[in-house]
Amino acid sequence: MLNTDLTSNDTLGDIVSSDLSAMQDFIFRSVGNENIKLVIDIISHLIGSGGKKIRPKLVFIICKMLNYSGENRIKVAASVEFIHNATLLHDDVLDESEARHGVQTANKIWGNKSSILTGDLLLTLAFRWLIECKSLDILSILSKASHSLVKGEIKQMATLFNPHTIRKNYFNIIGEKTASLFSACCEAASVISNATNDEIERLKNFGFNFGMAFQIIDDMLDYIADQSTSGKQVGKDFLEGKVTLPAIIAYEKGNSTEQKFWEKCFSSAERSFERALHYINHHNAIQLSIEKARYYVNMAQDNISTFSDSPYKTVLIDFLNSSIERQV
Amino acid sequence: MLNTDLTSNDTLGDIVSSDLSAMQDFIFRSVGNENIKLVIDIISHLIGSGGKKIRPKLVFIICKMLNYSGENRIKVAASVEFIHNATLLHDDVLDESEARHGVQTANKIWGNKSSILTGDLLLTLAFRWLIECKSLDILSILSKASHSLVKGEIKQMATLFNPHTIRKNYFNIIGEKTASLFSACCEAASVISNATNDEIERLKNFGFNFGMAFQIIDDMLDYIADQSTSGKQVGKDFLEGKVTLPAIIAYEKGNSTEQKFWEKCFSSAERSFERALHYINHHNAIQLSIEKARYYVNMAQDNISTFSDSPYKTVLIDFLNSSIERQV
Repeated sequence: MLNTDLTSNDTLGDIVSSDLSAMQDFIFRSVGNENIKLVIDIISHLIGSGGKKIRPKLVFIICKMLNYSGENRIKVAASVEFIHNATLLHDDVLDESEARHGVQTANKIWGNKSSILTGDLLLTLAFRWLIECKSLDILSILSKASHSLVKGEIKQMATLFNPHTIRKNYFNIIGEKTASLFSACCEAASVISNATNDEIERLKNFGFNFGMAFQIIDDMLDYIADQSTSGKQVGKDFLEGKVTLPAIIAYEKGNSTEQKFWEKCFSSAERSFERALHYINHHNAIQLSIEKARYYVNMAQDNISTFSDSPYKTVLIDFLNSSIERQV
Repeated sequence: MLNTDLTSNDTLGDIVSSDLSAMQDFIFRSVGNENIKLVIDIISHLIGSGGKKIRPKLVFIICKMLNYSGENRIKVAASVEFIHNATLLHDDVLDESEARHGVQTANKIWGNKSSILTGDLLLTLAFRWLIECKSLDILSILSKASHSLVKGEIKQMATLFNPHTIRKNYFNIIGEKTASLFSACCEAASVISNATNDEIERLKNFGFNFGMAFQIIDDMLDYIADQSTSGKQVGKDFLEGKVTLPAIIAYEKGNSTEQKFWEKCFSSAERSFERALHYINHHNAIQLSIEKARYYVNMAQDNISTFSDSPYKTVLIDFLNSSIERQV
């Protein structure tokens, strides 16, 4: 049953702010019980460091839309935020990152050991909370997503360059490492809200397409972001050898000299960001990436087209659209 | 109901070998489905590298003793082996280990990134298999143990030296990082075997005490192991600053010069293994550690004293005793 007790002026921030506070309270109460100062410090740093909290927001807005206000929404939201933060902690160690969203990373402040173990702790805590929801369906949804996420990260690291599969591999990897968890957030939120099977399927697909659009824009921003506003270090992914859509587009459209340049970037440490950017701009690869993200946004919108119009649905669609509007 | 279809000549190896093979088949079938060569290579290396597989053996022998031969025992055993191996992969990165059981560690062969991500993958796979058992009790037991295990590792890293709590902290840490998973193996095995609440409680405590004895001996071997037979690098834990029982005993019994030496070892990187060993031998700390391990073995034996005598119980007790007899 759809919830309609909302004025059309309410924004996403208005709608989910009390839920987000409840989630933070729940997290800090649970983590406080651990009684380990280092862990409390790292988690305060992570949760308070201005991350966008997109995944819990997705859980909350869908629960609101489907009129569910039970306690499990807080546990599910806290779990997805912890699963996401566990991967950030491990990623930052792997990538030797020094900053994220403009603030120092945990590994920079507390060292790699602390980051690896706290990542492990977040993952085990997330599963403990999910088990407390007493739903094997929810557990299955989130464990599959966590598994996908790690598989995507491994493939991103281990997939060798192959000109014939470069595009297919990219979409497969971002599907696994990002869209799977977005999808699981929406699916889990609709399951706890007792949605119909058709609604669950639609929201699951909505989340997947949202996640695809989000990651494409995130990857595109590596080439154009303004570090002072986004906190993202320009060219970081490129210099780590990550193969993302703008590079794939420029590679596909490039002449043989350009293709040789890209093949070196993809399979050795010989990389010039300036030259890469030149080719990317020359082939309009930023704009084409945004168009691809927009394609996924349209698919996501289509996924929820059968839901009756309501102020919550409008907010959900605005939230989706904002994912391709950030810093573009 | 106790199972008695066993001759008194059968050894642990005879009893669990077909179950261990079934577990390995299950693992390789599942991991094969991942279709990522790197992951298959690392897992083949881990599972084939001569680890003792104590935790799955505990699951199997208890299921046999309680006459349970359902499929879930394979999934539970594979899960506990993966949870354990996930921590080994992360530990070896943290400790910069180059060898374990006499063979090269995964991080030495494939690098830290691969080890961190494969560790994460093992943890998520373990939870997927546990969810397939469709028992919230089993999930709760194993998720609590995984959580404990990580907490123990973090405390081991982050606990500052304090002369008044050094002994208490040590037992607390090994309880969390080792005994909790041994305990969970026995508890989960008895739960899937439909044991009574009293039997579950006794086997859970048995596993905990077994784990305590095991870790005390493992820590003691750091000071006396013969690297050529055990594959353990002598003095490795000491040189990493791990505070274990032999050192605690020597510290407690030492004069003020000795105590100052130990305090430096515990709180700075200034360590002489030769001098540490001299004090440890002088105060008979190896023998006293073994006595402490024997105390836990006796407790464990007592935990299962109410179970009727049977060849399986004899094998279980032999298995327990073997934990303090290795390389001593």
